[in-house]
This record gives sequence, structure tokens and C-alpha cells, in this order.
Amino acid sequence: MEFGVNFFPVVDPAEKSATQYYDESLRLTKVAETLGFEHVQTVEHYFSAYGGYSPDPVTFLAAVAAQTTRIRVATGAVIAAFTHPLKLAGKLAMLDHLSHGRLDVGFGRGFLPDEFEAFQVPMDSSKARFAETIEAVRRLWTEENVLWDGQFHQFGPVSMLPRPYQQPHPPIFVASATSAESCAAAGTAGHHLQVVPSVTSREALQENIAGYRAAYAAAGHPGAPRIQIKYTCYLSEDRSEALVAGAHYEQNYIDKMAEAIASWASTRSDAYPGYEKFIDKVRAFDFKKSLQDNKVLAGTASDIRAQLETIRGWFGDDLCVSLQFNPGAMPFSQSLNAIELFGREVMPHFTAVGALQEVR
Amino acid sequence: MEFGVNFFPVVDPAEKSATQYYDESLRLTKVAETLGFEHVQTVEHYFSAYGGYSPDPVTFLAAVAAQTTRIRVATGAVIAAFTHPLKLAGKLAMLDHLSHGRLDVGFGRGFLPDEFEAFQVPMDSSKARFAETIEAVRRLWTEENVLWDGQFHQFGPVSMLPRPYQQPHPPIFVASATSAESCAAAGTAGHHLQVVPSVTSREALQENIAGYRAAYAAAGHPGAPRIQIKYTCYLSEDRSEALVAGAHYEQNYIDKMAEAIASWASTRSDAYPGYEKFIDKVRAFDFKKSLQDNKVLAGTASDIRAQLETIRGWFGDDLCVSLQFNPGAMPFSQSLNAIELFGREVMPHFTAVGALQEVR
Ligand SMILES: [Ca+2]
Ligand SMILES: [Ca+2]
Ligand SMILES: [Ca+2]
Ligand SMILES: [Ca+2]
Ligand SMILES: [Ca+2]
Ligand SMILES: [Ca+2]
Repeated sequence: MEFGVNFFPVVDPAEKSATQYYDESLRLTKVAETLGFEHVQTVEHYFSAYGGYSPDPVTFLAAVAAQTTRIRVATGAVIAAFTHPLKLAGKLAMLDHLSHGRLDVGFGRGFLPDEFEAFQVPMDSSKARFAETIEAVRRLWTEENVLWDGQFHQFGPVSMLPRPYQQPHPPIFVASATSAESCAAAGTAGHHLQVVPSVTSREALQENIAGYRAAYAAAGHPGAPRIQIKYTCYLSEDRSEALVAGAHYEQNYIDKMAEAIASWASTRSDAYPGYEKFIDKVRAFDFKKSLQDNKVLAGTASDIRAQLETIRGWFGDDLCVSLQFNPGAMPFSQSLNAIELFGREVMPHFTAVGALQEVR
Repeated sequence: MEFGVNFFPVVDPAEKSATQYYDESLRLTKVAETLGFEHVQTVEHYFSAYGGYSPDPVTFLAAVAAQTTRIRVATGAVIAAFTHPLKLAGKLAMLDHLSHGRLDVGFGRGFLPDEFEAFQVPMDSSKARFAETIEAVRRLWTEENVLWDGQFHQFGPVSMLPRPYQQPHPPIFVASATSAESCAAAGTAGHHLQVVPSVTSREALQENIAGYRAAYAAAGHPGAPRIQIKYTCYLSEDRSEALVAGAHYEQNYIDKMAEAIASWASTRSDAYPGYEKFIDKVRAFDFKKSLQDNKVLAGTASDIRAQLETIRGWFGDDLCVSLQFNPGAMPFSQSLNAIELFGREVMPHFTAVGALQEVR
């Protein structure tokens, strides 16, 4: 297993300024690099306290790349429907160079009606836009004189600059696919996978991951598929402190998500089956159940080691677990303590390097 | 007078990799900060060796912001027609926070037919898009629940996050206006100005700047208008070395610009009067005449001090002169030597701090 750090700002400006949020996240990034985390990633959202501090993940990740030398930088994800493929291919390739080839690109479909409405993009088109954008960007990265005649974009022949640092192109991840079909399609296409266990049952996620692995192997792609799996992590020497923080910040997440998805009450899209019931699901959230189901990590180092052993048993040894250590407006000292404890007392138990040190 | 550093990559990948170009530019940025330069800026262009290494200036400037603490970061410019105002407002505000309020935003109309064609934006619409984007971004930065019903974009009510660090918003520059009307309009609107003397006669530029200052004052805007004026600078202890470099890299600029604007031969736009003759103008380029006319700076520190004194006499004492020290694929050692010489032997002659040191 490897571990990354995920920044998903569920923060109201009244609680913590954007300056402070970015500064603290950059400090955590440098600590993460020192501790041996594999990547940092961040999200794309707009307009609300549910992720709205990150309308452009590439901008934040360029700052990360400039202050680090080893840790990978990942979008988790860019929303394909909201940026022109020419623009996306260009700025991602710039980031790949600025980071000397440390970029992993997660592409997502998006799921917030308010965002689609603001960009005047029909939600029903998001799946097709997602597929078109990934393929257009991949061709812009790898070919000259690209002539693109798609459903949503037409351009060319153009030769994009810069071409990426990594050859043939930065690893492509499909973000947050929740259906078995989408996961299998990602495997067939040779893409990597980003999954969010909190929105899927354990059994469904196991099936999706198994289907993904099988499709990747069946298509004969070289190398191993990479799977990033995302959790929020509340870690402290004091179990009750960790559980209090977990209950508080998970409820904050749920409350702000509920606001951000409120328009699903009046939105229907064939492309998002069941999303109109999303609000009820969110409202039914229960922290204790979430913890029991290992959808959130919380407790002492020993508790979290046990949770991760269970997760490894369920989903595999080859996961990269992407952890959020600074949810909501958590005080920085608490996040810093958690990530340092994780690096010292949890990570070595799971990584090859750590296992070796334990043997010695 | 103040001085900034301008990065405009007129580089073919066969001559210098993007990785090397960005790395060297970041190194020059840190040197520039130490030497007391006021800003660094970079451009937005696509597809060709004429600027194509910079499809997204914000991505590069986020890396600059992360490696510096004092120097300002400026877009020079973002092209309004190619990015959605929601996206532009969001990522520029992120950069403003990442830099702790060091952002200056130059907005440009763009002028390359190939770029407009690729983005499927009619060139005739660029002036109206430019005006609409600036105003939409300004409102997204300063107001909540923005309802925008423009000619090209409709959205809202939305409240953009993050709101910028600088209040009420980052300084707005109008980039490269070449007509008296556009310069006066920028002054009336209270915007700052970025000008490129190489594309305008000295007399016309003097009139444009005078008209801009008068309009800014007449509209009663608080504070002083800021004017950034852009030159390429070839500086060496050895005059002939500087002149050889100037002749070589200015010709490189002209050759690559000629390729990038080749489609003006078959393009006509009422919104770009005279641009169809642009190619002939470019082909008629003569380095010696350009140097005599002070449209490029080249020579020893003493030569360049004399040129800047003339420029100050023509256009005013309150300019910020934005200098390119690494044109084309110039070897890094040559750029580094030039910027250090400039900081030591030219800049003190013109800045308030430098004047004070000379008195002592
Ligand atoms: Ca490893
Ligand atoms: Ca709303
Ligand atoms: Ca064409
Ligand atoms: Ca000064
Ligand atoms: Ca072309
Ligand atoms: Ca609405």
C-alpha cells in the first residue's frame, strides 16, 4: 500500500480564509513529502463551501510542484465538462513540466447541478463530454496536427504546446466512477481509477474494483493498474479527541454537501440515475455507522492500522490510499499532529519501505 | 521608474525543452526578486513557437508565487475570449491568495487567427468579449449572487469562491491596446495599462499614453494609473556580444511571429483594421533601426541607461518597464549575466531606492 494526501476544502470563508487554507495545505504538503507520502491531490468545485475554494486544481498544484521535489501531484479531479480540451491539455502539460513529470490526471464528470447550470452545460451530456475530453486531451498530448471533430468540440489541425514531460503522457485516472460499467470501461481503456468508498456500499465497490482489474488485464495493457481510494483521517494519541473531531467534521461535510446538492431536489437527469435521492442518503448520515463500515478513519494509530488492514483485505494490497488530514476548518496544529502520527506510526506498517525497516 | 521581468517564450521545442524553459525562468524570477524587480509577467499563446509554451499564464505564475515572497506576479495577458469568466475569476483569485495579494491581471483581446479558429471564437467578437469578460470577472470578484446576462455568457445568481485577497480586487490592466480610443477607454474605466512599443510608432504611443492619463484623471479615479511598458533587453559588458545576441534573437522573434501570423494573409476582420498588412510590417523588420528607435534595448549598461533615459523622457517617469532577459533559446548563463548586470548597474540609476543609494 501507498498513501497520498487529499485536499478537499469544505470550508466557509467565515471559518477560514482561502489564504490560510492554501498556506496550511502547502505546509502539510511539505510535511507529507518528508514523511514519504506518494502524492497530493485536490478537487474542482465552485460557488459553495463544499469545495468552492478549489475552482482550479491546477493552480494550487503548480504551487505544490514549485515547493516540492519528489511527491506526485494529482488532480482529483478536473471536471471535463467545464474546461476546453485545448486549455486543459495545455495547462496540465505545463504542470507536468513544472513538476518534472510528477503529474497524475484524474478526470471527473461532475455531479452538482448548480455547477452545470452556471456553465450552461446540460448534465445529460456530461458522460459524453467526459469521454470526448479525455480522448481529445490524450491526442493533443501525443500527436501533432490533431484534427478533432467531436460532438462538443471541433478544432485543428493543431499541434499543442508544450507536449507533456511524461511519455507518452501523464497517467490518466477516471475519477469516482460509481457504476460497474464505468469502472470496467476505465479498465478496458487502460486508465487508472480514483474511487470514493463513502458513496458506494463495500460489496458494490469490491465488485467494481474486481471488474476494473479484470477489464484492464483482459485488454492487455502494460504495467499494473493504479487505484487511489479516498478517506478522511482523524488521528490522535487520544482516541476520544479523534472521535469528537471525526463526528464534528464529518457532520460539517454532510451539512455543506447537503447545501451544495440541494438543487437535486428539483433536478432530474437520466445520466445520473438515483441522484434525486442523494439528499435523503446524505441526511441519513451517521458517523458511528460510517466508522463501523470503515468509510472514515478515526481513532488512535492502532485503531487506524486495524481499519487499514480491513480495507486492504477488502480491496487489495496495491491500493494508494489518499487521505484528508485537514477537513473543514480544523485547526492546523491538529492536522499537523495527525499527519505526523500517521507517517510515524501507521504508514511504516503498510509500505514496502516501512516493512523493511520493521524487519531490521 | 520601476522594472519587471517579462517571460514570452518564443522557443521551438527542438531548441529548448519546456522543462528547461520553465526552470530557467523560475531561477531568473528568484534572482529578479533579490535584485528588487517589481514584477514578473507572462503571456498566453498556443500551438506555435511564438509563445506556445505558455497556454496558461496562471499555471506558471502559481509556481512563481510559491517560490517568491515579495515580487508581484502579472498576467501579460490572459486572453479574455478563450476562458470562461467563472473559470478565470476563480483561478486568478486562487493565485491572488497563493501570492498573498501580489497579483496584477492584464487582460488581452488576442490577435492570432489560428487561436481564434481553434477555439471557434469569431475574431470580430473579441472586443465585445474582452469588455464583457473584464466586467463579469470584476463583478464575480466583488459581489455576491452575481446574475450575469451578457452577450456571450449568462449565469447566476452565483457567489464565486474564493473572493480575491486584494480588496476590492486585484489591479486590472488592459493589455496592448494600440488605438487611442482603447487607451482612453481604459483610463475612463480606471484600468491600468500594458503597452508594447515595438508595434506602435513613438508618436502614436506618446499620444495614446497621454490620452490614457487624461481619461484616467478626468474620470476621477483614486490613486495613480500604472503603466507597464515592455522591451527585450540584451545587456553585456561586451557591447558587440549584446548586439550580436540582439540581432539574432530579435530575428528569431520576427521569424516565429511571421509563422504565427501567417494566417492573416487570408484573414480579414473589421475588428482588427490593418492586421492583414501585419506580415509585411514584420518582414520589414530591421534590428539596427529598431535599436535606433529604442524599441529594443541592447548594449552595455551605459548604453541601456541612455536608452532608458530617452524612454523616460518620451513616456514618463512613472512607468514600470517590463524586460525580457531570456528571449528565444538564449543560453541561461547569458540571461543570468544580463539580469544581474541590469540590477547592479542600470536599475539603481532609475529607482527611488537606487537614487537614494547614489546620493549616499
Ligand atoms: Ca512505495
Ligand atoms: Ca446556488
Ligand atoms: Ca485551420
Ligand atoms: Ca519602487
Ligand atoms: Ca496552424
Ligand atoms: Ca439558478
